[in-house]
Amino acid sequence: MCKRSGRLFGAPYSISTSRVAVVLNEKNIEYALRIVDTSNRGLRILKNEHKDSRYIALNPFGKTPLFQDHEVTMYESRAIIRHIAQKHDEHGPHLYGTSEKERAMVDQWLEVESQNFNPAIAPAVYQLVFAAWFGKIGDMRIVNPSIERLEKVLDVYEGQLMRTKFLAGDSVSIADLSHLPFTYYLVEHAGRDDIFFKRPHVQNWWTSIFNRPSWTSHLLKAYPKIYFNSHA
Amino acid sequence: MCKRSGRLFGAPYSISTSRVAVVLNEKNIEYALRIVDTSNRGLRILKNEHKDSRYIALNPFGKTPLFQDHEVTMYESRAIIRHIAQKHDEHGPHLYGTSEKERAMVDQWLEVESQNFNPAIAPAVYQLVFAAWFGKIGDMRIVNPSIERLEKVLDVYEGQLMRTKFLAGDSVSIADLSHLPFTYYLVEHAGRDDIFFKRPHVQNWWTSIFNRPSWTSHLLKAYPKIYFNSHA
Repeated sequence: MCKRSGRLFGAPYSISTSRVAVVLNEKNIEYALRIVDTSNRGLRILKNEHKDSRYIALNPFGKTPLFQDHEVTMYESRAIIRHIAQKHDEHGPHLYGTSEKERAMVDQWLEVESQNFNPAIAPAVYQLVFAAWFGKIGDMRIVNPSIERLEKVLDVYEGQLMRTKFLAGDSVSIADLSHLPFTYYLVEHAGRDDIFFKRPHVQNWWTSIFNRPSWTSHLLKAYPKIYFNSHA
Repeated sequence: MCKRSGRLFGAPYSISTSRVAVVLNEKNIEYALRIVDTSNRGLRILKNEHKDSRYIALNPFGKTPLFQDHEVTMYESRAIIRHIAQKHDEHGPHLYGTSEKERAMVDQWLEVESQNFNPAIAPAVYQLVFAAWFGKIGDMRIVNPSIERLEKVLDVYEGQLMRTKFLAGDSVSIADLSHLPFTYYLVEHAGRDDIFFKRPHVQNWWTSIFNRPSWTSHLLKAYPKIYFNSHA
């Protein structure tokens, strides 16, 4: 592998794998995607590849994604995107701030995504989108409190995005990009754009990150099969 | 505030506040602790201070801790400890690695703590320790799966700690220290040291981080009141 390339192990439809893919695209880093489906259940719409010992040797937790470049072999999507943003800071946009203070704000909002946004949106997406992939009907008793919790988080986002163009300041960062995969499923697959679009600054923010070539090219490359199958 | 001091808003018994306090102690940074109890329920053993608008203006999510130094006002404990470790890298131990690769490993293991360890141990600690603070009896139907999940995480830790002295390498890092608060409650308050001590490398690791002056001085300063009250 050269210094500007890498290997990404994961599934193209996976939330965490997509989180890394979009940052690799921002930095214009060539990467080989090795498909690993670590869900024991296996998504029927994709070939089911179970955990095997070669993968466990690289990531003992048996989760995806895993990333390799000429320097590291590592897992945990938000650690991987920090590594890529820092290592390739000079290529493409500065996704991790340009000062100690800006970096602190990126870390803060990336933690907000991980600790507040993600736990709020995840149950709704599982019930409204992923359940159907397994031939199940989503449970609205889980969806409703999930959406309520998400609304509260987005109220804070609206307040922040009134003051700054992106969450951590006026430049896009890994904190913004980290929101793409789950939001994409809720807005585009479950059709719940209303939750985001009733807040004008959140709407502008979402539109601007959703339309970045780093994300649209990921969708084009990775999602169509799933999209068309799940809507057949 | 001078460059080597700060303000920490939170509660001394709080998991997330303690996570920051121990890193401040490692770096020998003087800080004023402002007590904020954001639990709406209020712990009866401490004065109950509700969310108020001055605090919400600083952290719109209304959670603790919040940290201020001469440069930033920020929240989210793991973002705060990254900021402190990076800013004060030259004071005390290098808690965030000394190379790009080492930093990537610290971020990876800090994410493992956040995404794997924390969700496993938290339900057990809530039921076995915090429930009693509210005059409730812990629910073993929640404790048992929590401990089972924790055991699996610790099996991976044992494998890692056979190879390196600390999680991210042979030097202590913010990834190790981040495990202190929850583990302290499970081992010392709930008396479940067996879970950690049946794995020899996990036991050595725990003993070595638990006995760091940064942690024992935090316990001495912050916990006795709670400890003695809850065991009265």
